Amino acid sequence: MKWQRLLDDTLHYVRPQLGQGVVADYIPALAAADPRAFAMTIVTLDGEVFSVGEATTTFSIQSISKVFTLTLALEWEGQELWKRVGREPSGSAFNSIVQLEHEGGVPRNPLINAGALVVTDTLVRFSQAGAIDQLLALLRGLCDDETIDVDSTVAASERVWGHRNRGLAWFMKSFGVIRSDPNEVLDAYFRQCAVAMSTEQLARAGLFLANEGRDPITGAQVTSHERVNRINALMLTCGHYDMSGDFAFRVGLPGKSGVGGGILAVAPGVGSIAVWSPALNRSGNSLVGTLALEQLSLRAGLNLF
Amino acid sequence: MKWQRLLDDTLHYVRPQLGQGVVADYIPALAAADPRAFAMTIVTLDGEVFSVGEATTTFSIQSISKVFTLTLALEWEGQELWKRVGREPSGSAFNSIVQLEHEGGVPRNPLINAGALVVTDTLVRFSQAGAIDQLLALLRGLCDDETIDVDSTVAASERVWGHRNRGLAWFMKSFGVIRSDPNEVLDAYFRQCAVAMSTEQLARAGLFLANEGRDPITGAQVTSHERVNRINALMLTCGHYDMSGDFAFRVGLPGKSGVGGGILAVAPGVGSIAVWSPALNRSGNSLVGTLALEQLSLRAGLNLF
Amino acid sequence: MKWQRLLDDTLHYVRPQLGQGVVADYIPALAAADPRAFAMTIVTLDGEVFSVGEATTTFSIQSISKVFTLTLALEWEGQELWKRVGREPSGSAFNSIVQLEHEGGVPRNPLINAGALVVTDTLVRFSQAGAIDQLLALLRGLCDDETIDVDSTVAASERVWGHRNRGLAWFMKSFGVIRSDPNEVLDAYFRQCAVAMSTEQLARAGLFLANEGRDPITGAQVTSHERVNRINALMLTCGHYDMSGDFAFRVGLPGKSGVGGGILAVAPGVGSIAVWSPALNRSGNSLVGTLALEQLSLRAGLNLF
Amino acid sequence: MKWQRLLDDTLHYVRPQLGQGVVADYIPALAAADPRAFAMTIVTLDGEVFSVGEATTTFSIQSISKVFTLTLALEWEGQELWKRVGREPSGSAFNSIVQLEHEGGVPRNPLINAGALVVTDTLVRFSQAGAIDQLLALLRGLCDDETIDVDSTVAASERVWGHRNRGLAWFMKSFGVIRSDPNEVLDAYFRQCAVAMSTEQLARAGLFLANEGRDPITGAQVTSHERVNRINALMLTCGHYDMSGDFAFRVGLPGKSGVGGGILAVAPGVGSIAVWSPALNRSGNSLVGTLALEQLSLRAGLNLF
Repeated sequence: MKWQRLLDDTLHYVRPQLGQGVVADYIPALAAADPRAFAMTIVTLDGEVFSVGEATTTFSIQSISKVFTLTLALEWEGQELWKRVGREPSGSAFNSIVQLEHEGGVPRNPLINAGALVVTDTLVRFSQAGAIDQLLALLRGLCDDETIDVDSTVAASERVWGHRNRGLAWFMKSFGVIRSDPNEVLDAYFRQCAVAMSTEQLARAGLFLANEGRDPITGAQVTSHERVNRINALMLTCGHYDMSGDFAFRVGLPGKSGVGGGILAVAPGVGSIAVWSPALNRSGNSLVGTLALEQLSLRAGLNLF
Repeated sequence: MKWQRLLDDTLHYVRPQLGQGVVADYIPALAAADPRAFAMTIVTLDGEVFSVGEATTTFSIQSISKVFTLTLALEWEGQELWKRVGREPSGSAFNSIVQLEHEGGVPRNPLINAGALVVTDTLVRFSQAGAIDQLLALLRGLCDDETIDVDSTVAASERVWGHRNRGLAWFMKSFGVIRSDPNEVLDAYFRQCAVAMSTEQLARAGLFLANEGRDPITGAQVTSHERVNRINALMLTCGHYDMSGDFAFRVGLPGKSGVGGGILAVAPGVGSIAVWSPALNRSGNSLVGTLALEQLSLRAGLNLF
Repeated sequence: MKWQRLLDDTLHYVRPQLGQGVVADYIPALAAADPRAFAMTIVTLDGEVFSVGEATTTFSIQSISKVFTLTLALEWEGQELWKRVGREPSGSAFNSIVQLEHEGGVPRNPLINAGALVVTDTLVRFSQAGAIDQLLALLRGLCDDETIDVDSTVAASERVWGHRNRGLAWFMKSFGVIRSDPNEVLDAYFRQCAVAMSTEQLARAGLFLANEGRDPITGAQVTSHERVNRINALMLTCGHYDMSGDFAFRVGLPGKSGVGGGILAVAPGVGSIAVWSPALNRSGNSLVGTLALEQLSLRAGLNLF
Repeated sequence: MKWQRLLDDTLHYVRPQLGQGVVADYIPALAAADPRAFAMTIVTLDGEVFSVGEATTTFSIQSISKVFTLTLALEWEGQELWKRVGREPSGSAFNSIVQLEHEGGVPRNPLINAGALVVTDTLVRFSQAGAIDQLLALLRGLCDDETIDVDSTVAASERVWGHRNRGLAWFMKSFGVIRSDPNEVLDAYFRQCAVAMSTEQLARAGLFLANEGRDPITGAQVTSHERVNRINALMLTCGHYDMSGDFAFRVGLPGKSGVGGGILAVAPGVGSIAVWSPALNRSGNSLVGTLALEQLSLRAGLNLF
């Protein structure tokens, strides 16, 4: 029960910091979250699940969905995707439009909002069953849990307050980088952000990223080893907006955060970790979630470097 | 007939350059323009009209409309307008979104696209008769010509290809700088750009700008002397996108260009000048139109400096 | 004595604002200035001189020197100068290095620091008598006053604290835009900024700018009419750092400010105006000086627009 | 002899590409390099050395020196260093000055030129024996080779052509981020770039980075495990200018390139790899060197993700 003790120790260490930071308030549905809530789950490659805190409470995964839509888009569009989105850290805030203008409408990477809109554009164009239905099918399959769904209240709220993302989408449309109807892309994007999952579900869903692309429990090859290497590299270099370098510096693992307070981190060859705590640091990443991952990485010797 | 001779000489001088530059091609309706077309009209304060070239042929006034919508918006909203739009040269291309991001969504000045969208937002909010109807009423009244109208083919084309402006509008909406529905603002904006006028009509309509705000023929005070000083200052510093300094350097008069190839220039105390030639320089201003104004300014001693 | 009364009225109007703003403190020699000091002088084309306040007290002309070095550089290098410096408003603060990087080391215009360093590079390369001796010869000749000189205390202080300008000069050297030794250019630059003049001297020196390039008193043609048109256009569009548009909007005259609190303004066909008040607005222009020029322009009907 | 075969296979694979790319030509001493030269060395944790190509030919390590100066500076200044330099990817070219201006003169990370100048400033301030002597002592000690030295011809050439770096240093001095005399910092910086090493020496020197900070051969603890984690994280996120993301994506290892054509890569727990091939890609990283590391990482299963 080494993992359980490590998680318990981690919670003990971070508990005094709970409540620090600021809950995202750009939409009412997120602003209602308890800033002191906390959950952390690790699923190991042999399928064991260890948790502390409210690990079955669902929250809005927000930008963490970008990892799963990227996985799907790479399967469907392959290398062509990289013509419309880069793989360099952005060096700017998560919703920056500046680099888009300087670089012909091509976003720096698929884990910032602009790049994720390009990824969703691929889903809209390639998926026959509908972009969101395919994303839900992937997540439900990985978790063997048909209850995973979009929180329609959050999705509606995203749609009402998504002015900035609308601006990004139309701006990229003007460069031809978005190819389908921006309104359709935006609709799917707002819904993917509103998928609700618990840390147990999220860690379970991300397990293939720690195992060379193959889900170790079902045996399904979700994507190739090479693609997982690349998705993880992107998470490490670009997964935390303009604090990606700081996350690599402190945690030393691939990770992707969402403004709902969740973070999915990957320990290749070991397991998949999800943490949730809604209060955010100044870059929009879970403040205590990052601290918890830093501690766990240190205590368990997970740092890749 | 001094003015007629000056215009004739100017045309003689610029004729070898006709066809240089590139006609705007972002919408089909503009791309069809003859790159060798040319017209120039001066209306003096005593109401005399002198022209050369196709001075009764209408063309799309495009961004020149920004001068007239600004005049209306200042009447209606007054100083409050300057809280949502600046009055500094932008130092960037006409459709730049970079400064918007760095400066809280507040465009640099009302004569670039982003700033003109804010001005149109004011028209949409304040005009009871509808923004475009009020603009047309102003232009028709100034010209005593009820035929001035929106070219609906051009307007429809603008609407289809206006991705970048949609991006700008939603981006500013995200900062609260656009206050009404961006789709309504965009609809009005696309139509104002598509107003069709000849150089005779345009020079006539701009005459109040050369006469302290009062139309010298009808006697109507269109706006105050102080506001005209300010509108002219903005035209001089910001009227030609990222070649505004070059226009001031070469012509020395307030002016506003449009990608349809028109330019409206103001000689305070003398008269109002309109020129049209569809082929553009690299900054989107009429290449031969600018040259013609430079020559006329030099020959007639109109340079303000 | 209309002008005397206008000046008296202007001082009466601005007196309650004296002391507002902040005196430049980047070098000790400037920080010692009295924030409530004030002087204003107009010299008319017929050579009459009208003043209020401390019009014979000298102050550091700082960036106002850029107008006179530009005049010399254009005489010596002619049109070639424009290959290494632009003539567009910068849209950024006075010591910005950003646009330099984006635009191949070519500064936006000769009235910001980077552009003035390029102008001084021309002086260093072309002047046989030494750049500063030639500048002093010009100023002394225009004012018929051999006492005009560099304040060596200020110059020494500029040299010690001129890190940013050193950075700009070496950066432009890396692009080949600065052609002589940057250290020599910087030395001349620090001394030109430290020239000390009174408002009476400054207004007298700038008179040729209001009279088509010819000094109306001595009859000397300092530069051509065309060049004066262009220097004035640059002052109007670029003379007040990132508040150039605001100055044009409020005053409607070509002008150049310095962080010593001086402003030189030009009323073409009327006269030359100098104002001094050391406390600055947020963009580094004299706060009360700008207000005084706005009032005088309004009361005397000097606004060009 | 697994490693020897892997290196042989790698050379076989990349040989057809030798000569692609462009040798750095900003100083004559670098421009003379043979674009088809190639060497690659891996030193494993047990001290075995495997090489292909010209593995004992020395070349200019250039920016790879930044890894070793950073190691020293962290020992001497500790956490204080991070107040004057960040740890985020820059998202811009290696000599960018733009972000410096936007971010108060604090460079994004210690592996770009501006950040490395801050690191060298620390060396200049803290080292009693002289910054370069300390750096050479470190490298000579790690390699047990007293012949490692600065190539004085290259250093002199760097000094003559280092205009851009002079600009950066003075610019940061203006913000107080550089604390000692910029000329002294620049002198040390130009010399550290001119250190000449072979791939055998470089791989040997970097071995502590693959072994938790301890040199496995001498047993010396060069720096702490935690610091090595962080140096490696910085190399992974920031080690290849604006292609750092691409390197992580393709190679999946921490690495640092230099414009002399060298790259040092770290395989934690396995060994240290140096490659050299002078022809560069558009971002200034060895074109064939990157390709060779990509192949070796793939064939040997070194990718961290």
